[in-house]
Amino acid sequence: MRVADLTEEQLLALIVPELPRGAATQVGPGDDAAVVAAPDGRFVVTTDVLVEDRHFRRVWSSGEDVGRRAAVQNLADVAAMGAVPTSLVVTLAVPAELDVAWVVGLARGLAAVCAPLGVGVVGGDLSGSPLVVVSVAAHGDLQGRAPVLRSGARAGDVVAHAGTLGRSAAGLALLDLDGGLGGPVTESLSGGVQGGVGQGGVGRAGSDDEAHVRLVGTFLRPSAPLDAGPDAARAGATAMLDVSDGLLRDAGRLARASGVRLDLHADALAADVADLAEAAAVTGGDPWAWVLGGGEDHGLLATFPADAPLPAPFRPVGRVAAREGDEPDVTLDGAAPTTAPGWDHFAGR
Amino acid sequence: MRVADLTEEQLLALIVPELPRGAATQVGPGDDAAVVAAPDGRFVVTTDVLVEDRHFRRVWSSGEDVGRRAAVQNLADVAAMGAVPTSLVVTLAVPAELDVAWVVGLARGLAAVCAPLGVGVVGGDLSGSPLVVVSVAAHGDLQGRAPVLRSGARAGDVVAHAGTLGRSAAGLALLDLDGGLGGPVTESLSGGVQGGVGQGGVGRAGSDDEAHVRLVGTFLRPSAPLDAGPDAARAGATAMLDVSDGLLRDAGRLARASGVRLDLHADALAADVADLAEAAAVTGGDPWAWVLGGGEDHGLLATFPADAPLPAPFRPVGRVAAREGDEPDVTLDGAAPTTAPGWDHFAGR
Repeated sequence: MRVADLTEEQLLALIVPELPRGAATQVGPGDDAAVVAAPDGRFVVTTDVLVEDRHFRRVWSSGEDVGRRAAVQNLADVAAMGAVPTSLVVTLAVPAELDVAWVVGLARGLAAVCAPLGVGVVGGDLSGSPLVVVSVAAHGDLQGRAPVLRSGARAGDVVAHAGTLGRSAAGLALLDLDGGLGGPVTESLSGGVQGGVGQGGVGRAGSDDEAHVRLVGTFLRPSAPLDAGPDAARAGATAMLDVSDGLLRDAGRLARASGVRLDLHADALAADVADLAEAAAVTGGDPWAWVLGGGEDHGLLATFPADAPLPAPFRPVGRVAAREGDEPDVTLDGAAPTTAPGWDHFAGR
Repeated sequence: MRVADLTEEQLLALIVPELPRGAATQVGPGDDAAVVAAPDGRFVVTTDVLVEDRHFRRVWSSGEDVGRRAAVQNLADVAAMGAVPTSLVVTLAVPAELDVAWVVGLARGLAAVCAPLGVGVVGGDLSGSPLVVVSVAAHGDLQGRAPVLRSGARAGDVVAHAGTLGRSAAGLALLDLDGGLGGPVTESLSGGVQGGVGQGGVGRAGSDDEAHVRLVGTFLRPSAPLDAGPDAARAGATAMLDVSDGLLRDAGRLARASGVRLDLHADALAADVADLAEAAAVTGGDPWAWVLGGGEDHGLLATFPADAPLPAPFRPVGRVAAREGDEPDVTLDGAAPTTAPGWDHFAGR
């Protein structure tokens, strides 16, 4: 059954029952707007869009994958303020010929991320479009705490990271091995990710199947350490952001907002790089470039006073230094890093 | 200068200064998320998407037109809950070859609607895309009042409307006269709307230029009676919604949510129909179909207790009746209306 076979109200009747109500929801979908509790008299709000063939390909990603990813990347931004997510709204533009099951899958993907957290999917809008575009706005509750901004890092603070680095980029490189044309490698990966680890080989090297499937899974269905955001705020984090565009690029944003330099320690990242060695060998990719420049893992980068105990799963990856003259915003063991600084959506650099 | 000539950060540096901060904004754009005041411990949220060649055409609509429309249609949904708008977030997907001025114009259009209301544009996301897709989520403050839902209408209530009816549909029909191919009629209309009333004829009939330009303007740049929403709530409105998909269709939604029948009075709509007679003659359109079925005017339809004084600019357009048996949800002078019930985004009916 295609989207064009249903009226908008019929399609909504299939989607809305899939959506979690959420603990903070006072009025849910079905009226002109929803009403959500904001117990401390403020709310946090962020928004992100996923565009077909830019951020995902339908030959690789099921509707559920895209729904999960849309939820996670927005909730990670809420967490990066130190807030607990409460609700999201979604607009979905889809081609008339799209299978209705894909759209219902997207709703299930949103629900799979949101429901366990008590987050409501409280409203949305549907439209036709030549390609799939999913836009989410997510909201959170600061629970009376000050928001953790990008601008609070001070010289002497510890730089810490929670989550994975470079795994999404490595997963994408593995998917890209056969050019994204839905050939045998992609099909095997896709089946493996969606239905557990498949039987077939997943890369041409055929030597490290389960690890590769997990990397591809990080790209298709990232999971962010959402609890780590409020935990960091409680532990006294001075600055924080979601690493969505690559470690160096996002570290640079935090450094510039705070007027400091972030010195990352190569030793602290060596294990992340080593974990990607096999995928690098298969694809010809550079595991350091993935760890330093790869986006979409949605970990959290934060700075803490030197004497603050780091809440799990944060681990130290560097130090905040005063910025002098025309030093770079971010250094690796004190020197300018030599890899590309992440992903730009328009320039491709 | 095209979008592709700039990095994302360069483009943001042109857009962000155009955006109004808003009276309720505590943290604006530039961090992972914004922070907005919600003084009564709740917020209202709604979302809508505009897709190029579905909701607008770039030959007809400037970036500013689309920005205004995206803001108005979302703020109308906030107003329809009886809330005062506080903030919105925007995602924008645009082709690489799009003129940067179009994107800046969109930001100015959002600002033109939001700034006078003290509404902040507090966050957003940019992406590449083969066509323009603008998604807005808007938030509002109920100021301690209960939200006005669709479900509260009771038999005996007065049905009232604030805003225009059918004018957007008539404007679209006038634009469509030359098939949307950017011919002389469209160019004249477009110039007239953007720069005041133009010199040239706007329709082939050439007999009622200013009126036609105003109708086209309603389609390109709708303006909703936003103050009327909170005013209706204060006056005791029992139910309310934004008329975005046509009077009959949206009245049906209110009727079903409330378990009542809405009987509209043809006399009360006769002046709206008469105002569209000239445009109907030029285009061959049906002015009754526009008034009863045309969407996108973004007026408010509300029900009030029979003894409540109607706040301006609400005017009575019918009565709420008990619904018996398999009666229609909406009647016109007691009988089933014979025109099409508005617009469906997928089925085109």
